[in-house]
Amino acid sequence: MISALVYADEAAVGYDDLSAARQAAGTTWVHVAEATDEEIAAVQSAFDLHPLAIEDLRGDVRAKTEEFQTYTFVLLNALSLSPGETSFEKVVATRPVGIFIGTDWVVTLGTGPAGPVQRVMDAAERGDERLLQRGPDFTACRAVDVIVDAYFDLLDEIETDIEEIEDEVTVSTDSETIENINEVRRDLLSFRKQVWPAREAVGVLARGDPQEVQPQTEKYFRDIYDHLVQLVDLTETYRDLVSGARDIYLNTVSQSTNEVMKTLTVVATIFIPLTFVAGVYGMNFAGGPYNMPELSWRYGYPAAMLVMGLIAAVMLVHFRRRDYL
Amino acid sequence: MISALVYADEAAVGYDDLSAARQAAGTTWVHVAEATDEEIAAVQSAFDLHPLAIEDLRGDVRAKTEEFQTYTFVLLNALSLSPGETSFEKVVATRPVGIFIGTDWVVTLGTGPAGPVQRVMDAAERGDERLLQRGPDFTACRAVDVIVDAYFDLLDEIETDIEEIEDEVTVSTDSETIENINEVRRDLLSFRKQVWPAREAVGVLARGDPQEVQPQTEKYFRDIYDHLVQLVDLTETYRDLVSGARDIYLNTVSQSTNEVMKTLTVVATIFIPLTFVAGVYGMNFAGGPYNMPELSWRYGYPAAMLVMGLIAAVMLVHFRRRDYL
Amino acid sequence: MISALVYADEAAVGYDDLSAARQAAGTTWVHVAEATDEEIAAVQSAFDLHPLAIEDLRGDVRAKTEEFQTYTFVLLNALSLSPGETSFEKVVATRPVGIFIGTDWVVTLGTGPAGPVQRVMDAAERGDERLLQRGPDFTACRAVDVIVDAYFDLLDEIETDIEEIEDEVTVSTDSETIENINEVRRDLLSFRKQVWPAREAVGVLARGDPQEVQPQTEKYFRDIYDHLVQLVDLTETYRDLVSGARDIYLNTVSQSTNEVMKTLTVVATIFIPLTFVAGVYGMNFAGGPYNMPELSWRYGYPAAMLVMGLIAAVMLVHFRRRDYL
Amino acid sequence: MISALVYADEAAVGYDDLSAARQAAGTTWVHVAEATDEEIAAVQSAFDLHPLAIEDLRGDVRAKTEEFQTYTFVLLNALSLSPGETSFEKVVATRPVGIFIGTDWVVTLGTGPAGPVQRVMDAAERGDERLLQRGPDFTACRAVDVIVDAYFDLLDEIETDIEEIEDEVTVSTDSETIENINEVRRDLLSFRKQVWPAREAVGVLARGDPQEVQPQTEKYFRDIYDHLVQLVDLTETYRDLVSGARDIYLNTVSQSTNEVMKTLTVVATIFIPLTFVAGVYGMNFAGGPYNMPELSWRYGYPAAMLVMGLIAAVMLVHFRRRDYL
Amino acid sequence: MISALVYADEAAVGYDDLSAARQAAGTTWVHVAEATDEEIAAVQSAFDLHPLAIEDLRGDVRAKTEEFQTYTFVLLNALSLSPGETSFEKVVATRPVGIFIGTDWVVTLGTGPAGPVQRVMDAAERGDERLLQRGPDFTACRAVDVIVDAYFDLLDEIETDIEEIEDEVTVSTDSETIENINEVRRDLLSFRKQVWPAREAVGVLARGDPQEVQPQTEKYFRDIYDHLVQLVDLTETYRDLVSGARDIYLNTVSQSTNEVMKTLTVVATIFIPLTFVAGVYGMNFAGGPYNMPELSWRYGYPAAMLVMGLIAAVMLVHFRRRDYL
Repeated sequence: MISALVYADEAAVGYDDLSAARQAAGTTWVHVAEATDEEIAAVQSAFDLHPLAIEDLRGDVRAKTEEFQTYTFVLLNALSLSPGETSFEKVVATRPVGIFIGTDWVVTLGTGPAGPVQRVMDAAERGDERLLQRGPDFTACRAVDVIVDAYFDLLDEIETDIEEIEDEVTVSTDSETIENINEVRRDLLSFRKQVWPAREAVGVLARGDPQEVQPQTEKYFRDIYDHLVQLVDLTETYRDLVSGARDIYLNTVSQSTNEVMKTLTVVATIFIPLTFVAGVYGMNFAGGPYNMPELSWRYGYPAAMLVMGLIAAVMLVHFRRRDYL
Repeated sequence: MISALVYADEAAVGYDDLSAARQAAGTTWVHVAEATDEEIAAVQSAFDLHPLAIEDLRGDVRAKTEEFQTYTFVLLNALSLSPGETSFEKVVATRPVGIFIGTDWVVTLGTGPAGPVQRVMDAAERGDERLLQRGPDFTACRAVDVIVDAYFDLLDEIETDIEEIEDEVTVSTDSETIENINEVRRDLLSFRKQVWPAREAVGVLARGDPQEVQPQTEKYFRDIYDHLVQLVDLTETYRDLVSGARDIYLNTVSQSTNEVMKTLTVVATIFIPLTFVAGVYGMNFAGGPYNMPELSWRYGYPAAMLVMGLIAAVMLVHFRRRDYL
Repeated sequence: MISALVYADEAAVGYDDLSAARQAAGTTWVHVAEATDEEIAAVQSAFDLHPLAIEDLRGDVRAKTEEFQTYTFVLLNALSLSPGETSFEKVVATRPVGIFIGTDWVVTLGTGPAGPVQRVMDAAERGDERLLQRGPDFTACRAVDVIVDAYFDLLDEIETDIEEIEDEVTVSTDSETIENINEVRRDLLSFRKQVWPAREAVGVLARGDPQEVQPQTEKYFRDIYDHLVQLVDLTETYRDLVSGARDIYLNTVSQSTNEVMKTLTVVATIFIPLTFVAGVYGMNFAGGPYNMPELSWRYGYPAAMLVMGLIAAVMLVHFRRRDYL
Repeated sequence: MISALVYADEAAVGYDDLSAARQAAGTTWVHVAEATDEEIAAVQSAFDLHPLAIEDLRGDVRAKTEEFQTYTFVLLNALSLSPGETSFEKVVATRPVGIFIGTDWVVTLGTGPAGPVQRVMDAAERGDERLLQRGPDFTACRAVDVIVDAYFDLLDEIETDIEEIEDEVTVSTDSETIENINEVRRDLLSFRKQVWPAREAVGVLARGDPQEVQPQTEKYFRDIYDHLVQLVDLTETYRDLVSGARDIYLNTVSQSTNEVMKTLTVVATIFIPLTFVAGVYGMNFAGGPYNMPELSWRYGYPAAMLVMGLIAAVMLVHFRRRDYL
Repeated sequence: MISALVYADEAAVGYDDLSAARQAAGTTWVHVAEATDEEIAAVQSAFDLHPLAIEDLRGDVRAKTEEFQTYTFVLLNALSLSPGETSFEKVVATRPVGIFIGTDWVVTLGTGPAGPVQRVMDAAERGDERLLQRGPDFTACRAVDVIVDAYFDLLDEIETDIEEIEDEVTVSTDSETIENINEVRRDLLSFRKQVWPAREAVGVLARGDPQEVQPQTEKYFRDIYDHLVQLVDLTETYRDLVSGARDIYLNTVSQSTNEVMKTLTVVATIFIPLTFVAGVYGMNFAGGPYNMPELSWRYGYPAAMLVMGLIAAVMLVHFRRRDYL
């Protein structure tokens, strides 16, 4: 999956041989997607790349910009969200892409599946994008740009999750909800872990520190840097939103307990006194004029029922006023 | 909606042709409100503005100050609050305004509806504001000033919401209240997201870094910078107030549950023992001198009622002392 | 309320005319308390003060030190607490004081009511304080010192409130308590908002950045700077204390709910089983040897009462052991 | 346990005498594991090491890099987790390792049991690792590398604990769970306390500040530095995960209380009204046509039971709708 | 309590006269413990100390290092914990110690009771400590060392309190416990307030900024600086532990409420239905074959009791399964 392109005399020509491509006059771009170990070794020897940089492409390494003797090495992680076990669990998959910027060549090396950089290469091969005539640093800038642009899609997905959760928290007391909230928090943590170092790495390029970055390209890197600053900002804002959603959820749960307590209180405080009254007239006192004469009154029973009804009515009014019903 | 004004020989003259306005001797100010794509293109070519700067005017970009070869570009977002779906939901609408400060010209470009900068232009055209005779940087400073001043109005609106909420939280246990609190928190987040970069952008001008800013104008930019520092401060203070209001709300809810519990406890603890007593005298023991002789005492019933009344009275006193009533 | 004093030949002489005072040989100090617009204008023209600095004296501006061509401008806010509506609501009133330090003159301008600086001027007029012979910067240092000293009184008042609250939170479950806590938190926020910029402003003088500050005076400014650092520290500590008090309050409320629940639980769990027993012997089964023969036992009733007493006693012991009583 | 190795003429030779090893031409590496006081004294005098550095090896000292006259001293703590009293209580055992980098010699001194550095020495003695031919700084870099690599194992153990806890918190309301959460939090605190200074110490080497570090070795130190940055990041992320787990646990407890309340509410609100109805028909009113005629109706009892059954059914439907059952 | 010691010709000689001691050839150390105003004045005039530095010794001033014309002034607070009103309330008593480092003299001035510095002076007078031959800066370093060492004792006391609290929180729901937690938090706040500035003050010496500090002494100051960094670290860790203990306490309280609720729920849900059944058979329906025929069944009563027993058994099993018992 090695693509090699040399731009010279206002035309871009594809090459099969890497050494030839490097030595050809003009600006050379070599891109490898889903690089195998052999391909990496071939590119490494053709462009004399440092073993430490190559090793970084294999592990779970933070984005960085490192200046070597003859080139500048930019490591970025292309990100994609793949669904996890639960609906809000996302796995942030990282595919490291190494960008080596030389004086008249640029190498982009990806070990994962072909991503946005491949599409730029395809367009360049078709002649749709005139990157190479603006120099290897501009080509690298474009590669960085498409990787960072994809971050926004990822953050959009997370935002959709947050919106879903914000709708959920006002009505649900399921303990699943708080687990969902935690999943999104986790996603944001993973995302932030990637964006922070990316911002630093691009910042170095935007300041034009490496000699391979020409003054007129700095502005374009600064533009990407602005995007990364915005991404970091958004991540922080989303963290705040998630913790706001958590507050609302906890309040919903606590409101629900409150509601349950009110139901119990209303029913119990109305019927317990009534049951007491009924209990009184169930007593078996007998044997004298002072022992429960009301039991034998003509309207004793209706009167007792009326009294109980009144008690209940008064309580209901009281509870409605205190907003328990 | 292009307005072009050239100040020379102590008088400001309006121009129709942009190139003529630029080349005319004196200080030129070109302002475009609700700029269409054609108008932007015209201004861009007349003043040779960088495509990246023009692009920034179209998106949701953070405020910034960027120095170009022949001019300094200041991007600020004019803000306005428009009502959202609920009473506390506000939508912070941003209308980017680009300010290009040249050596003897200044261009102010707004893509949104005419805002405060238009009013300054109107006053300058009427001759009410003598901006241009103090140079293009002073004119730019005035434009920045009116945009930042409008931030205070916005923060005032948020403050009114906070005050309303602070009154609400001490009495309401509605779950809508916590959603309102979250809305205001959200508004503050949006606002802070705008003010922080604006502070940085104006800070660059206040330090006089760009060569287009003359020493005597720095003080005026520093004044605006002080305003922005104050806005950032206020935002932080308001965030603290909102989280204080949230504490009070949660306490109100928890107090309300406590109140409900107390009602239940008082009624239940008074009547449950009484019901037991009534239950005892409802038992059907019979058949001997030791089986409930009190049932046939002459004053058995009044005595039982008295005992129950006493029990109730003691409990009421107890509850009043413990502040349950 | 303009006081003008010129120190020359080891004696301080009062002047009525500002211009004469300025031009007189020696060190000049002009102090204005409760300055009217006319007085400000007079001082401004006599000492050629910048309009922006004068404007800062009128609004709600953060403390700052700004260097002008011929003088250094220090803006400080004299603070005083006035009682608000509730017992813990304090209004932090700010009275801006402008201190202009020239090479052989110093101007102190206060728009609010006469404060501590006036007392220093009075002492200087009486000859009690030998400030002017140590230079205008030392005089300014003294003015800054008395303003900052008053901050400690204010913080003492807040500390008294905190101590009152700390006593309250362990016993009270009033929702007013949490509002008091919030009031104090608010006061600390207002105070911090004033102290932070004051620290920065004095820090500039303590480092001796402005040329008007002589090396031997720096130490005295550093002393005031140390005080301001201590004030900032104390404010942070007090914020921690207030949030500690809030924790105790919330715990008191939650303990109180717990207490209410225990009361209910004890009474209900003792009497509900007893009522059940009484209910059993209130049943009307009859018609055979197996139907409630205990009702006609000779000691049925005393036995039943004994059993109920035993049940109650066992429960009471159980509850006492679990610390419910 | 002193091992001394001198690399010269493309071969590594072991030495018994320390002074001879130091003076021999070539690169010298002296490693001491489980160093006794005598061994330390021998090495100290042979290489002229500063008493303060030697003292640091004995106490509980933070990792650091210190430059001395003739060598650079790096102190790192090798870490290992040993099980504590409870299942989640871990004791982070620290074994300080001192690394002294000279111009043509390197000394690694460990007071604790032989750790990963010993294994590197063993490999070097067997000729498996060609460290010394790349200089003493590269040898030191390798020693630092194996110590830092072991940090990841430790963090993995903590991660396993966190995963176990995350499974636990959704089902358990045991108060032991929150103690486990706190144990892990404690472990992370201990770990962070070690990693932060290690990052700083290696950062000094990665920047190539000490003269003993050659430019080509800097990259390798920077690689280790990147690992330490990642460790710090992970620690922060794990702290966030633990506090998320704590939120879920607290919610589980609060859900459980809610569940208990619902059970009580359902049973009590269904049976209390029914008991009241039963109580009414247990009353002893008699003596007239209006006194409880329903008692003598032919279908009075079945009707009463039916009414009670209906009441119960209505309530059950109500509770099911409100999701109490 | 003035002790004056001059080291010259390899011997330390005590002096009574301060001026003589200062002018004597060799290194002079003057130490004053429990200094009276007269003693301070004597030392101040003999060594020409600045009034501001002397004043700092009297108040509640933060630790600092200040460079004067002819000497460097280090202010440290010796700390001691004295018991307060409650068992966990500690009063952090501060005794300021001023250390003035000249080129060939050092003055240590303490206004509080004799502390660790006095013990160093005693040892020096006995000839046990050879400080002065290593210069006045080394003597000062030793004085700083013993003061900072005492900080560790203090932190140990606080640690003991934290351990006591950690044992307490898992079992106690006393509201005293949270007050104890707050006391320890307060102690840590007071301690941190002292350690932070001490770290800064010693940091200045460790960097060797003052000219009185010789290069070979810097390392010893750096060692003390490391101790102070460790103290700051420990303080932060302890704050985290205390807030962890608070979490466990709040959980214990909430578990206890849960426990109370469960007791109530179990008893009430078992007996309320039973009481209802008893109530049913206490009804007085009569007058037909459908009115409670079970009352006259031969085994009616035993059957009713059996049914009630079954209901209770089923519920008990249910509650045991749901872990309520």
